[in-house]
Amino acid sequence: MRRKGLASMAVQTVETSAASGTSAAGTPAAGTPASGTAAPSGTVDLGPASGLSCRECGTRFDLGPIFACAECFGPLEVAYDLPLGDPEALRAKIESGPANIWRYAPLLPVPADVADKPNLNPGWTKLVKADNLAREIGVEPGKLFVKDDSGNPTHSFKDRVVAQALEAARAFGFTTLSCSSTGNLAGAVGAAAARAGFRSCVFIPHDLEQGKVVMAAVYGGELVGIEGNYDDVNRFCSELIGDPLGEGWGFVNVNLRPYYGEGSKTLAYEICEQLGWVIPDQLVIPIASGSQLTKIDKGLKELIALGLVEDKPYKIFGAQAEGCSPVSAAFKAGQDVVRPQKPNTIAKSLAIGNPADGPYVLDIARRTGGAVEDVNDEQVVDAIKVLARTEGIFAETAGGVTVGVTRKLVEAGLIDPALTTVVLNTGDGLKTLDAVAETSQATATIPPSLEAFRSAGLAG
Amino acid sequence: MRRKGLASMAVQTVETSAASGTSAAGTPAAGTPASGTAAPSGTVDLGPASGLSCRECGTRFDLGPIFACAECFGPLEVAYDLPLGDPEALRAKIESGPANIWRYAPLLPVPADVADKPNLNPGWTKLVKADNLAREIGVEPGKLFVKDDSGNPTHSFKDRVVAQALEAARAFGFTTLSCSSTGNLAGAVGAAAARAGFRSCVFIPHDLEQGKVVMAAVYGGELVGIEGNYDDVNRFCSELIGDPLGEGWGFVNVNLRPYYGEGSKTLAYEICEQLGWVIPDQLVIPIASGSQLTKIDKGLKELIALGLVEDKPYKIFGAQAEGCSPVSAAFKAGQDVVRPQKPNTIAKSLAIGNPADGPYVLDIARRTGGAVEDVNDEQVVDAIKVLARTEGIFAETAGGVTVGVTRKLVEAGLIDPALTTVVLNTGDGLKTLDAVAETSQATATIPPSLEAFRSAGLAG
Repeated sequence: MRRKGLASMAVQTVETSAASGTSAAGTPAAGTPASGTAAPSGTVDLGPASGLSCRECGTRFDLGPIFACAECFGPLEVAYDLPLGDPEALRAKIESGPANIWRYAPLLPVPADVADKPNLNPGWTKLVKADNLAREIGVEPGKLFVKDDSGNPTHSFKDRVVAQALEAARAFGFTTLSCSSTGNLAGAVGAAAARAGFRSCVFIPHDLEQGKVVMAAVYGGELVGIEGNYDDVNRFCSELIGDPLGEGWGFVNVNLRPYYGEGSKTLAYEICEQLGWVIPDQLVIPIASGSQLTKIDKGLKELIALGLVEDKPYKIFGAQAEGCSPVSAAFKAGQDVVRPQKPNTIAKSLAIGNPADGPYVLDIARRTGGAVEDVNDEQVVDAIKVLARTEGIFAETAGGVTVGVTRKLVEAGLIDPALTTVVLNTGDGLKTLDAVAETSQATATIPPSLEAFRSAGLAG
Repeated sequence: MRRKGLASMAVQTVETSAASGTSAAGTPAAGTPASGTAAPSGTVDLGPASGLSCRECGTRFDLGPIFACAECFGPLEVAYDLPLGDPEALRAKIESGPANIWRYAPLLPVPADVADKPNLNPGWTKLVKADNLAREIGVEPGKLFVKDDSGNPTHSFKDRVVAQALEAARAFGFTTLSCSSTGNLAGAVGAAAARAGFRSCVFIPHDLEQGKVVMAAVYGGELVGIEGNYDDVNRFCSELIGDPLGEGWGFVNVNLRPYYGEGSKTLAYEICEQLGWVIPDQLVIPIASGSQLTKIDKGLKELIALGLVEDKPYKIFGAQAEGCSPVSAAFKAGQDVVRPQKPNTIAKSLAIGNPADGPYVLDIARRTGGAVEDVNDEQVVDAIKVLARTEGIFAETAGGVTVGVTRKLVEAGLIDPALTTVVLNTGDGLKTLDAVAETSQATATIPPSLEAFRSAGLAG
């Protein structure tokens, strides 16, 4: 790990203020408490989760709504007592489980009876064999797959992570689910809270596009517009979490972040199970905070440790938009430090200028022999349309980023076209219609006559 | 059946022109050929489908791209050689099948190897136990379920029916997939054609809202704006299908309509299997053309005939928007004839003023002891929001219609709150954002300060 201890965290905190990126409020300011409001005491049952562990110094903590190490301010992650010993029995148990993420409950920080509790039951989305796309971008047909997370309840992968945060909130006795958001997360939190009987309070920049406001408001929770930009919203949330006003509040991506992040592991589990319990040779994953990529790597390593898949080499590739490519820039420059950028891209769901997990992403890409690459907005739009016309999958801009980067990496010879490649689409094109609006129009407009149709030259 | 033979069909054809409803171009004008363009000859393998049968006079026809009886102009439907005899074996086969509609391939007009062909693999959507909604509308918790078809690949039930039409098109050697549409169907056809390697050509009114044009165009097929209203589009398509220009074209809802319609049976199959192979006591189904409701009834009867479920009484309720309620009006008036209406409702996906299957719907509602009811646009909006805030499901206007009608029928004592009820949501709220935009806004807008937040009175 390149990022160590208090000193570098303090630097990063300072830089957070400088960047106008949509970074989650996950980095504690030095000197502020690292925990959220105190939860009621009592026995916390989060299944195999045995505690929290600092990713930097390894210090262990009890399960609780805390997110930064009291020793070194490093990020905390969930530690497990995993069900080692009988992979066949575990595999059979998983395969007979529900068609959602709870089939993997024995590997997640959730109680064993989680499937009986009211939640949105996300996951088990389609892994689409994408032969048409493969031919289009130069991969051997049969070797390319799209993991399409637009099939989740609110049509993005955020349902996976929010579902974990919800169970943690339940376990800690929180009654309000909250987050700062400019899009997918707001809908995922609002919907999950509604179904689970939680109050929700979501904070957004006051000038968000009307469509996104409607999507966030329709679930009936509190929706608060903050006069300021997304950085102001995040700073406000950090204040609120340390104040009595925020008592009983679970911020999914702040004081519940260690649990929240684990939801991304389910993408690794599903991909491998859907491939017949085999790790793909190459994975292309979008980078926003970088958490998704690091948790997918964690999930793959767990599957190996559990004996559910054979240990084999795999390469992880990270995908960014050129207009917000701090990790890609660091990778290409051979640097260990990620320099924050001011985002300017249509891929807004990836527009985190100062990605918290950037250094870990660099580590993983280098360790596995992968890479981090970026594409410009024009290439993003083109890739969205290529995916739609080859496979009938309408992706949001983040999906355009991964498909575009995959094409670029194949052309550069970094992705081997003869090996199995899985590309993630993490969201739905209906949420980013503007990206393709200008170039997706009627082929022709004609009067209702066969003669006009004949003249238009469209008969097949 | 109330509608008999040529005479009433001719009347209905005349009335189609008078109504400005979004009726599918499924009713042949008297005297025009009832078939599409000739398909290449050869053995047609559509699995258990043994032929086509006239719903009015029972005349049998070979499988082919025809949709109206040559004897009486009645609508044709698919006849089957169903796998009778060993329900346990069939149930086991289904349960070990894929998590999509192809688990029911032995009961559908598709070849046995359909799951290996490129298509969108729709279906196996969630059946959500809706206890919060139940409490809200006066149903016993544990007894109310929402079948949420927004989880389909293009987020509406249309993926189910288009998937059947696609297999028929393949079998008949068509190379272009087509339809007239103002919304969900355009996306479903465009996406399915893209993935299957078909050309697509979708016809829309030229002045369709931009968002819908983008959704239809993004899959890269031909999208033709017709200068005129939806009736003009349909008339044009009827002309095209009888012209050499349309040779090799499969219009999913015209010359492929008998196969297309069968896709709705899968809703019945899935609901019963998801309830543990039990028919629910009460079903609430939206009515556009009425085809979905009649095919769900057909599916339930097949399950009984096959011994997959126990024979028991069930009530089918139809749901319409007040602004387009020809079937509801006929039901309440005790009439057998459905008088066309000029639609004026926000529930545009149900706005068929002259529903082809209206008389069959009346038959089924009366035979099963159900009813047909309608709600006004305000109630539709309210019901969308009730469903969103109780269960986290964001439905399109059609889902607002079914939930609103369910509430009304419970209040009227027509739905028994102690019996199992399944309500259909057939589409996605992201596609009809306008319906709830005005009433789904931020709770408050404040400066980024705790003091302002305290003053707003939103602390939990």
